Amino acid sequence: MDFSQYFPIWSKLTDDQRQRITQRVMRREVKKGALLHDSSNECTGLLLVRMGQLRAYILSDEGREITIYRLFDRDMCLFSASCIMRSIQFDITVEAEKDTELWLIPPDVYQAIMNESAAVANYTNEVMASRFSEVMWLVEQIMWKSLDKRLASFLAEESAIEGSMTLKLTHETIAKHLGSHREVVTRMLRYFQNEGLVKVSRGSVEILDMDALERLGE
Amino acid sequence: MDFSQYFPIWSKLTDDQRQRITQRVMRREVKKGALLHDSSNECTGLLLVRMGQLRAYILSDEGREITIYRLFDRDMCLFSASCIMRSIQFDITVEAEKDTELWLIPPDVYQAIMNESAAVANYTNEVMASRFSEVMWLVEQIMWKSLDKRLASFLAEESAIEGSMTLKLTHETIAKHLGSHREVVTRMLRYFQNEGLVKVSRGSVEILDMDALERLGE
Repeated sequence: MDFSQYFPIWSKLTDDQRQRITQRVMRREVKKGALLHDSSNECTGLLLVRMGQLRAYILSDEGREITIYRLFDRDMCLFSASCIMRSIQFDITVEAEKDTELWLIPPDVYQAIMNESAAVANYTNEVMASRFSEVMWLVEQIMWKSLDKRLASFLAEESAIEGSMTLKLTHETIAKHLGSHREVVTRMLRYFQNEGLVKVSRGSVEILDMDALERLGE
Repeated sequence: MDFSQYFPIWSKLTDDQRQRITQRVMRREVKKGALLHDSSNECTGLLLVRMGQLRAYILSDEGREITIYRLFDRDMCLFSASCIMRSIQFDITVEAEKDTELWLIPPDVYQAIMNESAAVANYTNEVMASRFSEVMWLVEQIMWKSLDKRLASFLAEESAIEGSMTLKLTHETIAKHLGSHREVVTRMLRYFQNEGLVKVSRGSVEILDMDALERLGE
């Protein structure tokens, strides 16, 4: 068990606090596609990613989705434990985008330690500020940027995450990341293909001209 | 000086912390329209509203605006002191919507106390979570709600804030709250007027049928 190496402020905990966390933290391995948290469960717990990739998104009443942020190795998800703070008044859904190993920290033990430790409370603040910054970036994207630019940025970012020029993504999946409709994404990808930016095949998008894609996304 | 009655966790501070804040906090009175913080100043300080109304918004490169949240009596603004946390990576602008009395807390003194006090750090967490919830609500509005519904909600909310059925708002101002264009707002208000919901005159909007407006906004 190497939780202590992944929890960034382990060195700032007291022996008692370390013991209380160690006794309760749970190791989980989940498969790609697994649902880790949704609005039916108010307080699953905090998720600390050991290795893998999670996606946090919101859902409309009609079932539309938009990606709010993603979590990679060593990232922590607070909003799957919204009961730890009274002022968190929104629901997110968290799913595994890849096979993922993670720790689940029970909300009650985390909350108790956060209330007594300035170090843990300030760390929590930094995690929240970091997610807040991602959501503010998203607001700017949605408000001021047209969908073609957002799609171009998304494809370039995905390529960086995957380390590949060929992205295994359906048009439906892309639409859910961007909060758009499949038909709109299909039309836009066809336009990108005509411009020589990508090659679209069933279930995948191949990037042909990364420079042009990045320029368009800026 | 009654700062102690407005700062919600005064009772949880040590005498030393109280003294350090008291020595540095500044009382300000600003007129409606005054700019309190913008991106040219990284770290103005924390703003605690004694009486009045502030608006926090973001600006696009082209000068378009959208309101992110508002601050009323006893509310605190953190993001005008973004230097207190490394992970705050966005800029907001804060202006007075009404004549406002407030306290400005210098960022260095607040940061120092937050780092040593779990109570102050946890209070800061709650303030941030509360703003986060407002921004998530905004994302849902922008993504899933059409502009007519957003305009209807906005007018009903303004009426509640002002305690009046006649709102002194130009179409330009409404557009800046909603992140839209003046022309679009004018067209929509004309449609609302034809439906008997409002009466539009120069520089003001009178609400004629609040029930219908609220139904539309839901």
